[in-house]
Amino acid sequence: MGREVYPLEQEARGKKFGEMIPRLEETRQKVREAGLWAPQVPTEYGGLGLGFMEHALVCEQLAKTPYGMYVFNAQAPDAGNMEILNEFGTEAQKERWLRPLCAGEIRSCFAMTEPEHAGSNPVWMSTTAVKDGGNYVINGHKWFTSAADGAAFAVAMVVTDPDAPPHGRASQIIVPTDTPGYRRVRNISCMGDEGEDWDSHSEITFEDCRVPQENLLGGEGKGFAIAQARLGPGRIHHCMRWIGISERSFDLMCQRAATRETAPGELLGSKQTIQNWIAESRAEIDAARLLVHHAGWRIDQVGAKEARVDVSLIKFFVAGVMSRVVDRALQTHGALGISDDTVLSFFYRDGRAARIYDGPDEVHKSVVARRILKGYGVEA
Amino acid sequence: MGREVYPLEQEARGKKFGEMIPRLEETRQKVREAGLWAPQVPTEYGGLGLGFMEHALVCEQLAKTPYGMYVFNAQAPDAGNMEILNEFGTEAQKERWLRPLCAGEIRSCFAMTEPEHAGSNPVWMSTTAVKDGGNYVINGHKWFTSAADGAAFAVAMVVTDPDAPPHGRASQIIVPTDTPGYRRVRNISCMGDEGEDWDSHSEITFEDCRVPQENLLGGEGKGFAIAQARLGPGRIHHCMRWIGISERSFDLMCQRAATRETAPGELLGSKQTIQNWIAESRAEIDAARLLVHHAGWRIDQVGAKEARVDVSLIKFFVAGVMSRVVDRALQTHGALGISDDTVLSFFYRDGRAARIYDGPDEVHKSVVARRILKGYGVEA
Amino acid sequence: MGREVYPLEQEARGKKFGEMIPRLEETRQKVREAGLWAPQVPTEYGGLGLGFMEHALVCEQLAKTPYGMYVFNAQAPDAGNMEILNEFGTEAQKERWLRPLCAGEIRSCFAMTEPEHAGSNPVWMSTTAVKDGGNYVINGHKWFTSAADGAAFAVAMVVTDPDAPPHGRASQIIVPTDTPGYRRVRNISCMGDEGEDWDSHSEITFEDCRVPQENLLGGEGKGFAIAQARLGPGRIHHCMRWIGISERSFDLMCQRAATRETAPGELLGSKQTIQNWIAESRAEIDAARLLVHHAGWRIDQVGAKEARVDVSLIKFFVAGVMSRVVDRALQTHGALGISDDTVLSFFYRDGRAARIYDGPDEVHKSVVARRILKGYGVEA
Amino acid sequence: MGREVYPLEQEARGKKFGEMIPRLEETRQKVREAGLWAPQVPTEYGGLGLGFMEHALVCEQLAKTPYGMYVFNAQAPDAGNMEILNEFGTEAQKERWLRPLCAGEIRSCFAMTEPEHAGSNPVWMSTTAVKDGGNYVINGHKWFTSAADGAAFAVAMVVTDPDAPPHGRASQIIVPTDTPGYRRVRNISCMGDEGEDWDSHSEITFEDCRVPQENLLGGEGKGFAIAQARLGPGRIHHCMRWIGISERSFDLMCQRAATRETAPGELLGSKQTIQNWIAESRAEIDAARLLVHHAGWRIDQVGAKEARVDVSLIKFFVAGVMSRVVDRALQTHGALGISDDTVLSFFYRDGRAARIYDGPDEVHKSVVARRILKGYGVEA
Repeated sequence: MGREVYPLEQEARGKKFGEMIPRLEETRQKVREAGLWAPQVPTEYGGLGLGFMEHALVCEQLAKTPYGMYVFNAQAPDAGNMEILNEFGTEAQKERWLRPLCAGEIRSCFAMTEPEHAGSNPVWMSTTAVKDGGNYVINGHKWFTSAADGAAFAVAMVVTDPDAPPHGRASQIIVPTDTPGYRRVRNISCMGDEGEDWDSHSEITFEDCRVPQENLLGGEGKGFAIAQARLGPGRIHHCMRWIGISERSFDLMCQRAATRETAPGELLGSKQTIQNWIAESRAEIDAARLLVHHAGWRIDQVGAKEARVDVSLIKFFVAGVMSRVVDRALQTHGALGISDDTVLSFFYRDGRAARIYDGPDEVHKSVVARRILKGYGVEA
Repeated sequence: MGREVYPLEQEARGKKFGEMIPRLEETRQKVREAGLWAPQVPTEYGGLGLGFMEHALVCEQLAKTPYGMYVFNAQAPDAGNMEILNEFGTEAQKERWLRPLCAGEIRSCFAMTEPEHAGSNPVWMSTTAVKDGGNYVINGHKWFTSAADGAAFAVAMVVTDPDAPPHGRASQIIVPTDTPGYRRVRNISCMGDEGEDWDSHSEITFEDCRVPQENLLGGEGKGFAIAQARLGPGRIHHCMRWIGISERSFDLMCQRAATRETAPGELLGSKQTIQNWIAESRAEIDAARLLVHHAGWRIDQVGAKEARVDVSLIKFFVAGVMSRVVDRALQTHGALGISDDTVLSFFYRDGRAARIYDGPDEVHKSVVARRILKGYGVEA
Repeated sequence: MGREVYPLEQEARGKKFGEMIPRLEETRQKVREAGLWAPQVPTEYGGLGLGFMEHALVCEQLAKTPYGMYVFNAQAPDAGNMEILNEFGTEAQKERWLRPLCAGEIRSCFAMTEPEHAGSNPVWMSTTAVKDGGNYVINGHKWFTSAADGAAFAVAMVVTDPDAPPHGRASQIIVPTDTPGYRRVRNISCMGDEGEDWDSHSEITFEDCRVPQENLLGGEGKGFAIAQARLGPGRIHHCMRWIGISERSFDLMCQRAATRETAPGELLGSKQTIQNWIAESRAEIDAARLLVHHAGWRIDQVGAKEARVDVSLIKFFVAGVMSRVVDRALQTHGALGISDDTVLSFFYRDGRAARIYDGPDEVHKSVVARRILKGYGVEA
Repeated sequence: MGREVYPLEQEARGKKFGEMIPRLEETRQKVREAGLWAPQVPTEYGGLGLGFMEHALVCEQLAKTPYGMYVFNAQAPDAGNMEILNEFGTEAQKERWLRPLCAGEIRSCFAMTEPEHAGSNPVWMSTTAVKDGGNYVINGHKWFTSAADGAAFAVAMVVTDPDAPPHGRASQIIVPTDTPGYRRVRNISCMGDEGEDWDSHSEITFEDCRVPQENLLGGEGKGFAIAQARLGPGRIHHCMRWIGISERSFDLMCQRAATRETAPGELLGSKQTIQNWIAESRAEIDAARLLVHHAGWRIDQVGAKEARVDVSLIKFFVAGVMSRVVDRALQTHGALGISDDTVLSFFYRDGRAARIYDGPDEVHKSVVARRILKGYGVEA
């Protein structure tokens, strides 16, 4: 990581993602050659076949630098798509979509959130798929579809049965991005940057977009259940990534404290405020990591559904820890922290979304509390 | 605990400790009969002989109610004195002091902090012991000597060699409280209560107080080292107690949220603010417990000295968690939380000291940070 | 204040309020002689006749020590009762109740909160008064009736018309405490202390308690309106008291920082953490005072009703500032802060209620937000 | 503002500053025509001649949108340079530099911070100016020189007398940017954006850069004093800008709360967490504004030097308020808040520097505390 991947940070400064692709391909090739490619992918698809918790530990290391997950082909949203294709896909779907995805030959996206409806309410959506002949005809509007720019296909959450109970209304359908009626409207500029290719979040429309019924993933009405299967364990990996980011930031903070002088001979690290930040960050990161490991262990023991509270707990707890640690590290660097001469400014901008995506903190807190209060005999 | 110990809370309301002693003796007797007496004490002295981490787990349960530790004879400062007598005492000292302590026949105290010097600086003290004949002659001034009222003996930290390097100046000497020259000046009123007997913090003076040299504990100049041996692992137990207090408070908060209405048919627990508190508290307590277990495991693995950073981390982290959880639970109860109709008001008052004793948060944070920065090659 | 009132703090340590009364009477006499008696009371009733904001400024000074408000006869709940008697009372009521109250010859209480209903919901109560002959017959249950112990009369909030719209159901009735059927059940132990006399919070029952109809205060169904008239401006005075407490705590913190050494020659005040606390406290107290002054000015300009948002804002903002400042000051004192050797431990315990009484923070926040959102065209 | 300036936000999205200049010139022209040009500039130089506090009130309004200050020609660092040129400049300097600056014909920059030295220590710098013939010869290295790209001249802080007492070492010298030896090395990419023209922060080197001695501003050794004269009152304007940003964010938060639904018919604004944010933000912004007005009034009354504590207090207090308000507003918008479809994402990125520039929070806190402790008789 230190030799091959961290240096990409400064190389990439001021460059669009597209310009970086050849350089990233080079590094990906080194990863392949080192036998470390796609750690989370089953061996039959060319990965290392690491178990769920093993891969979580890997995520912490890869996430310490913005391109880490990508060069190991473990990046969102592809990794999640690989998981659900592997678990719910037909053999034909796997051959067509999973195999090249695992090989890093194509990319994909996952189209769920809609601008008109709160993303915090996962059963409220308007995009529909209606059967017609052997096809589904899809109409609707999505946004914050990450990495749609350059993706070969989207997995789209669509309502197939509006009259079913809320959690049975939606299905997931694979939509090749060259299908007529599928349109990437724009890359949504986020935090000052429109992004490009994998590094982007798009607005998408479906207008009478027809895909064959065999593109249905895992059964009609299973959309929500598959999303849960995808998101629950995926949150462990998100959280481990955030811990990686926290550790990297912590390390930069300590390096700065140990080298910067505030006056001749007076180390920044001798300031008690900086010492407080170091100590508090150390405690918070360690506690966060243990909590994530524990939640992962719970998923292993009792399954993602039963471990829902554990997963919601880490979602907001770790996002909060990362926010504070990155903020302290940035402040420790002064103006340098604002600049892109270190990676901290990127972590600050990019990490802000952690408290929002996959369910904002506030939603997870309510989920946790209501579940706990159920144990006290009430529906709150 | 629920049947025999929690009910003591309301029985004790408005009573001085002395009045409660017969009732507490009764419960202690039941503990003995149940074969649960003195869980942390070696079996040869009548205890259960639990290992270090086993006892830590027990502490969480016992600490959920103010008299829990006491009725199991696992209360501070006696438990710490038992440990050091067992580890550093001579056979004669053990027979005379340790055995009756373990049996619950006598109580003891530990006199270290001095009013004139910051307790946060453990090597700065003025109380001296000078050899004279076969005796030590002790002169000095201590305070916040917990449970001195009614104690049979004090273990006193005294300077025996003022010219030694800072960590080698002090020794620990056993001083029977009926020794001439030993005087308990007062019980210091704390949080509105002077306290009594075990439930007190005293100011003490030594004026030409003579004790035989065989009362020296563990060698001259070993005072600081023994204190460290006592405090390091002791902090694990403090932290587990605080987690017990947090859990009890959490439970009371949830009970209240699940039963109190803010308007007819509207549960307090349906308020999002209360839900936030429940969720945040759950995450913080779980994280704190894992961090304490981890620190305990570290002590087991590498020893108290090497695990110093781990221990300092939990000291301030868990004290902070407890403060917040107790505060939220109290607030959830409204005026009832202020009253002594629940135990929360006690936890609020009593728990405030956790951020101060055994080293204030601020000192532990600096310890942690300086140790970490040493790893970056600097003395900060 | 410094010469006559602050010294009462240490004199009172460990004493019940009753024991202190002669000493307090002495000081009250000095206040009368100095021509400073009852600053907020109209001159015709023997006070200084200060205007609303003038008295607010006085409150800050008096509240810097626990007995300050009392020795000037400006203490809650009497001051509030004086206000409503003066504004809404008949001449007969004023002669009988207001005059001796202003003279400091009797004390009073205000019975509103009920244990069965959330105090945060002021229109939800069960105590009723039914007309019978020339009397009201009162039945019900109150608690946290402050200073009921020793009071000559209570002003009781009771439902006189259960079928009226919520804000018109209740009335306020003056109940002499020697009326048959009025019973002070107990002083509720709060923060470890049952209290006594003025320094107490009682549980009260009314059982067929008959008082003449001329004891009605300000008209039937006006109970809620009078309570609002009492509480709104009263909150300004509460807030100014809290600022007084904050200032006193701040001063003690600075004194400690300027005199305590953490090692020979090393001032506590040279620690950056302490400096942070001093600076943050200074900013917060100054900001809080300005905000309270502003809210008072708003009440003067537009009336208490229109200034409701302003008053709710300061209620939670200033309570929060006081909590933090007292906490920092206490921590700065270490173990001494826990003790009753300074007044900080009292402020810590007593001040905790500020976030609860007169409407918990959480309720005021919702009031503010809903009012603001009304300006955006919605009922939230 | 609403009609002409706010709309520039969305027009500018994705554009470099240079592309926007014609459009901004258009708006500047409208400002001139409306008779609102350069509110803070003396009338003799074409401005409105507003007083110090009058302009502070204006700043709040202009800062509600990123281009507000610029289109009124009140933007940093030009406004500060106009002030010091007006106060300390010679007539010749004023004619040559101040007049076109006030007219908006040229721009300028202020080169103070050096990469090798902590910006928090304003008397520690290495750039020197040595007299030679009628010139100063400047050598050194600066960075975070805002708006240097496109500036006609820099005001450079340089050491003219290294042997003087610390506050007398530096002078300010006007350096036209076309002077040989002056080199803009790069625009420092900050928060992901290299910026351009006015919207940039540059790294600068001086290599034997010769400027005539008549370019000295306000006397040799006066550099620090002039910087103080510039920064002290300038901080009032910074703080008022931050309040403007807070108000705009608050308004967006309320608009979102009042219109977004989390489920059909359920307003986001009915969530108690959102209500808490609205209420807390309202209180904090109001308190912050009053504190800034108070500090401004103090400067008017006692001068910038005596009001130093007041100015330091607002510097960190208001920066903190803005950070929290912007963060809450962003979170209220969910994914939309991350995007550049609202201005919040810009405020989040750009506002982060407020806790750093013109002295980081931590430095101002120490300044405040040491000054206060001086009142307690100690140098801490």
